[in-house]
Amino acid sequence: MNIIDRLIEKTAETKNPSVIGLDPDISKIPCCYKKSATDRENPLAVASDVIYRFNCDIIDTVAELVPAVKPQMAFYEKYGSYGVIAFEKTVRYAKEKGLIVIEDAKRNDIGNTARAYAEGHLGTVETVDGSLVPAFDVDFLTVTPFLGSESINPFVDVCKKHNKGIFVLVKTSNTSSGEIQDVISENKMSISENLAKYVAEIAEGTEGESGYSPIGAVVGATYPDEAASLRKIMPKNYFLVPGYGVQGGGAKDILPCFNSDGFGAIVNSSRGVLYTHMSDKERRTCTREEYLKSVKCSVTKMQKDIYSMLKDTYVEMVY
Amino acid sequence: MNIIDRLIEKTAETKNPSVIGLDPDISKIPCCYKKSATDRENPLAVASDVIYRFNCDIIDTVAELVPAVKPQMAFYEKYGSYGVIAFEKTVRYAKEKGLIVIEDAKRNDIGNTARAYAEGHLGTVETVDGSLVPAFDVDFLTVTPFLGSESINPFVDVCKKHNKGIFVLVKTSNTSSGEIQDVISENKMSISENLAKYVAEIAEGTEGESGYSPIGAVVGATYPDEAASLRKIMPKNYFLVPGYGVQGGGAKDILPCFNSDGFGAIVNSSRGVLYTHMSDKERRTCTREEYLKSVKCSVTKMQKDIYSMLKDTYVEMVY
Repeated sequence: MNIIDRLIEKTAETKNPSVIGLDPDISKIPCCYKKSATDRENPLAVASDVIYRFNCDIIDTVAELVPAVKPQMAFYEKYGSYGVIAFEKTVRYAKEKGLIVIEDAKRNDIGNTARAYAEGHLGTVETVDGSLVPAFDVDFLTVTPFLGSESINPFVDVCKKHNKGIFVLVKTSNTSSGEIQDVISENKMSISENLAKYVAEIAEGTEGESGYSPIGAVVGATYPDEAASLRKIMPKNYFLVPGYGVQGGGAKDILPCFNSDGFGAIVNSSRGVLYTHMSDKERRTCTREEYLKSVKCSVTKMQKDIYSMLKDTYVEMVY
Repeated sequence: MNIIDRLIEKTAETKNPSVIGLDPDISKIPCCYKKSATDRENPLAVASDVIYRFNCDIIDTVAELVPAVKPQMAFYEKYGSYGVIAFEKTVRYAKEKGLIVIEDAKRNDIGNTARAYAEGHLGTVETVDGSLVPAFDVDFLTVTPFLGSESINPFVDVCKKHNKGIFVLVKTSNTSSGEIQDVISENKMSISENLAKYVAEIAEGTEGESGYSPIGAVVGATYPDEAASLRKIMPKNYFLVPGYGVQGGGAKDILPCFNSDGFGAIVNSSRGVLYTHMSDKERRTCTREEYLKSVKCSVTKMQKDIYSMLKDTYVEMVY
């Protein structure tokens, strides 16, 4: 089954077009996870263990509630190879629990370097005896297009070959995104719009049975007008939507990212689900059970907010 | 000593403003390195061992000839955490040999995510007991600015704190770089030029005794006209110059990247030094000694080409 059809199927099953960001921040992880730290000597190894245990609990808590998780690579590789091991174990655990894994790593380069990233994260890599084996093997990867089409094409090739997907950064949710992304080109379209056009073109032929393509785009919840314009240019490309909650995007703001069937977008929340629903003080003193209960509440509330907003808006919605 | 002054000192010592890219490509590494592969069972671990052994030989060969090496992270992390271990060991070995390490990873994100990348690669990371330890601890990192100033600032903060440097992608060497980077903004400057202006501004106060700043820019050898314009906007920011050799940039093309003192830029060659000076067939049958001799020849030739071109052009050159 095309990976995008799997994402859609799981979205319908859970009635939840949202994804939980796995952004393990040691300074914010509840203290109960740190007290039982391992006796490994290397502090990077200890951090890696704490992160993995924390992630397993989050995954167990959300596995039935969301279609996917989105680990942010920066929070793993900051601990070097130990952190990357925690990332690999997290990916495996999430997949075992039936979750789709969207790796947020914003990788970017050209030619055979871009291919190396694509093969390592999404495909298979050539080993010393010539055999091909998977390395990270995530389902989707975010990709930054600053180096132009040459920096997107190798990722698309690997996606086609291995039934994987990417989300190309088209319009990001942050305040300074417009400095580059909103600049108007000679053809009177913004850089975001031109990127959207390219993503739509290069995705042709990759659509699943649902009609949607796994060659998608990152479109921020904080710019609903731009999202509406980009939705028109990319009617069949899936959107990964950051900026919901903590960054200021509300349930209404994300509506233009969706099509009227209720599909076409998956909304991310990371800090809103993991940290900000509990005060710093509460996270210092809570038990695992208390913490995970509060995570579950946050996830359920987010599902309800988004789902009811979609239901109220789109009469054609199919789930 | 400011890290940029160290780079300049080593450039003058070696009379060589170039950097060797450490891009280990298993399909191109000479067979003599693969025959003695370890008996570890995991093929990713075997690849990691071969890469590290190969890199050690390259580092030993070039340590007296160049000021710095530039490992391209894509070729390591494609092998997952095993590859990242080879990267870490390579960085340590290169530093032991007195080389400056420029990590080419084109990292990019915003806010605390960008900070996580910056701390992990250039600074120190918070561990479970609250202590701060270094992870990758490279000297310089390449950074992609697609998300705007918010995606550059956290890296600059960490550089200031830890005496490290970055090279922000301003004008890359590849064919499709202009699709985004050459677009003209409302102020009649290209996106590259506006980025250059921002890099020059944000670098103020970071200069070493040499007057140069470790907050630098990636400027491709393949666009000499653009490089001349960017040099004027960023007179004191160091340039990392890809595109020399295999990608088509010659010794003349890189001149506009330099100032008349012979400093201001460091030119990269990866494939030209590691692979393309020997045919595929030769790399299948050569001995380690033959291969390393040819690498040394390539590095020496590149040094001579660049150094004599600078000497012939800039009478004020100081080394």
